[in-house]
Amino acid sequence: MSGQSAPQGTEGTDTGTDAAPGPGPRSVAAHQAAVAELLRHWFEAHPPAAETVPVAEAAGRVLAADVHAPGNLPPFTNSQMDGYAVRSADLAMPAGESAGESAAAGPDGRAVDARIRLATAAHIPAGSVPPPLQPGTAAPVMTGAMLPEGADAVVPIEACDPDHFLPAGTAGTVQLPAGIPPGRFVRRAGSDIAAGALALAGGTVLGTLQLGLLAGLGLDRVAVRPRTKVLLLTTGDEVREPGQPLGPGQIHDANTTLLRSSLEAAGARVLRSRILADSPAEFLERLRADIAADAPDLVLTSGGISKGAYEVVRQALAAAEVRFLSVAMQPGGPQGIGTVDGVPFLGFPGNPVSSLVSFEMFLRPALAAVTGTPRPRVQVQARLTEPLQSPPGKHQIRRGRYCPDGTVVPVGGPGSHLMHALASSNALISVPVGTEKLPEGAEVTVLLVD
Amino acid sequence: MSGQSAPQGTEGTDTGTDAAPGPGPRSVAAHQAAVAELLRHWFEAHPPAAETVPVAEAAGRVLAADVHAPGNLPPFTNSQMDGYAVRSADLAMPAGESAGESAAAGPDGRAVDARIRLATAAHIPAGSVPPPLQPGTAAPVMTGAMLPEGADAVVPIEACDPDHFLPAGTAGTVQLPAGIPPGRFVRRAGSDIAAGALALAGGTVLGTLQLGLLAGLGLDRVAVRPRTKVLLLTTGDEVREPGQPLGPGQIHDANTTLLRSSLEAAGARVLRSRILADSPAEFLERLRADIAADAPDLVLTSGGISKGAYEVVRQALAAAEVRFLSVAMQPGGPQGIGTVDGVPFLGFPGNPVSSLVSFEMFLRPALAAVTGTPRPRVQVQARLTEPLQSPPGKHQIRRGRYCPDGTVVPVGGPGSHLMHALASSNALISVPVGTEKLPEGAEVTVLLVD
Repeated sequence: MSGQSAPQGTEGTDTGTDAAPGPGPRSVAAHQAAVAELLRHWFEAHPPAAETVPVAEAAGRVLAADVHAPGNLPPFTNSQMDGYAVRSADLAMPAGESAGESAAAGPDGRAVDARIRLATAAHIPAGSVPPPLQPGTAAPVMTGAMLPEGADAVVPIEACDPDHFLPAGTAGTVQLPAGIPPGRFVRRAGSDIAAGALALAGGTVLGTLQLGLLAGLGLDRVAVRPRTKVLLLTTGDEVREPGQPLGPGQIHDANTTLLRSSLEAAGARVLRSRILADSPAEFLERLRADIAADAPDLVLTSGGISKGAYEVVRQALAAAEVRFLSVAMQPGGPQGIGTVDGVPFLGFPGNPVSSLVSFEMFLRPALAAVTGTPRPRVQVQARLTEPLQSPPGKHQIRRGRYCPDGTVVPVGGPGSHLMHALASSNALISVPVGTEKLPEGAEVTVLLVD
Repeated sequence: MSGQSAPQGTEGTDTGTDAAPGPGPRSVAAHQAAVAELLRHWFEAHPPAAETVPVAEAAGRVLAADVHAPGNLPPFTNSQMDGYAVRSADLAMPAGESAGESAAAGPDGRAVDARIRLATAAHIPAGSVPPPLQPGTAAPVMTGAMLPEGADAVVPIEACDPDHFLPAGTAGTVQLPAGIPPGRFVRRAGSDIAAGALALAGGTVLGTLQLGLLAGLGLDRVAVRPRTKVLLLTTGDEVREPGQPLGPGQIHDANTTLLRSSLEAAGARVLRSRILADSPAEFLERLRADIAADAPDLVLTSGGISKGAYEVVRQALAAAEVRFLSVAMQPGGPQGIGTVDGVPFLGFPGNPVSSLVSFEMFLRPALAAVTGTPRPRVQVQARLTEPLQSPPGKHQIRRGRYCPDGTVVPVGGPGSHLMHALASSNALISVPVGTEKLPEGAEVTVLLVD
């Protein structure tokens, strides 16, 4: 009944005595490694089969395998500018002239740009296949249009005289600057990526920029890893669903929303998110039925794992391969980790802030490292706008508001029930073990969160 | 036909001569302001009606109005720890004793903690309503459980003797430390947020942390602003949909994917994303039909706005309230802005990198400022791992890979067709006007992108 309690949680009294084999609490780094190892072991034993999805629906998914370019990008050599496609040999600097040493010097001794007149060929719009470029001619070419055979450079229209195109079909001449090197303003076929080259490595998270490349390569479907399936359970029979009226002593469930939203934003699929009653026997029965029915990759609970007199998760899983231990972190000290019927299990504490911090510190990094999604949080250094204190022997995670000027404002104090303060923060401030006082202006590491 | 061309775009030759009234190109800041003003004017004239959605589906949406707490959070005064609820007056320091000045000194002169023995009352699980606490008694209370009337402090179980709870129903006594101040380890009703107080301001983007607060407040539905409706059109009849085979001179459309994914990630709704043929008359006819049918908030095109001989968007909209101008930015210099049939219009250049940079520099910040979503990109300072050059008079936007150590590696050079390099970057590096050379190690401002 204190599983998820008002405000959800029971982490206050875990003194760490269960954190065998050492006598003290486990370090944050050691528990991070343990959570990642739990997931790694599961996915090594249960390698997920790839699924193929439309590129338009693949945002946030993880590439199942390397993608090689099916063709050149660009597919053909084309112009980088609106201008004239030329043979650079036709525009060689006249004998005796070179940049900075010109035979044609003006009255003040400064070089005058040498110009060469060529006959104009037919326009080359993008999407057309031009005839070969005859020597001594220049073909009006649009950006992205195919370069004609023989052409090896492009002169931008604004460098020409006249500096606009003649109407299509008009025969004429154009004056072009001399000394254009071969390759100028030419995009070679395959210069972005060559056919057969590695475009994106397996394990890449597909964001906008990666989806754009797949589309540019002509791919409309892509093989991705399946989403990690998470069975999410919230404990506490004093806990009511949002939208339901509260009786005396009852509270609304925030943890399910916090964890489901966090998991979904991290690319996982939440199979069930249920508030379970506080009887250990009923909890275990339902949990095992859900595991059998849903085949999750992970069971995640919040609440009921500390050392109160009513700890449903802890009591229900006393016989399972689960350890309940203390991590030297505040909030989020009490943690459960192990397997239930062979499936990875994590038990987070019941306070909303504690469960959110547990997700950000343990589960999210493990998902990122093992499954490839989500992308790791951005971590930056920031200057505190006010002093902070932290308890000895704890890695304290405070909530804060990171500002574009590189400062971070702590919000809400250390209390793990403060959801309003949590909702006004965008950063988690780390105060590692060994640091008990930080002055205003001190540099701290912050994780930027949504 | 050069509208979206291989690789999509026509920005090379815009010399800025259309950027009336000034003679030169418009600054990035001036165009950012113009784009925001265009959207602000539209939404002021067409204020969107709020829609109510389940909290579970509200991630990324924007609150339509202030949300005030419907009740106290926590709803009732409760314990922050597993321990004993007490009347602090029962644990007053014995006469003559105070911290550091104890009548009960040990042999070495150090103070011995004074202890007081109280009779134990019935257990208080979370979710129950306890009877009033009788003077001279201590009630075992679980974290989050309601404090009994009369109790004003909690003593954590590990500070007590015995340091574990007696079985429920057992009568007994417990030794507690003296000198416990009132309020210790008590969470007062409303201390997180009081009934009626502002919980979240209208305009707040709903991320995980905000959704958690709404749930904790018992809300399961929330009024949000409608998504911005964008009609997305890509030009160029040499452009083929991904998945379709290419003929000579043809390319696959990357812009639709880049812009649709960017818009959706920014919380907008893409109404149509069509590749339109390159005839100006056909383009205009279809565009006006789509505007009439879809009632978009914004028309966004890519390609066809530069100064080549075949610029379908520019030619089609010559008679519309649209300006085609040059912004002092590379890539993404050519820009179209105005209204078509009264609806805001933006025309981005056709190169994929140019259209993505245009989105990040102009449209995304305007959507954030005017509609409240998306959240602004995180902007950080980073050290260049290699020198950079930038053309005079341009705000150059380079692609880069930002690393957790605070460095940024430029990738792919300035070429606006380089999708492979774009897909390996996670940051846009700003090199503002007036900076033409930056050495290795120079600090630059980078925008972190997905």
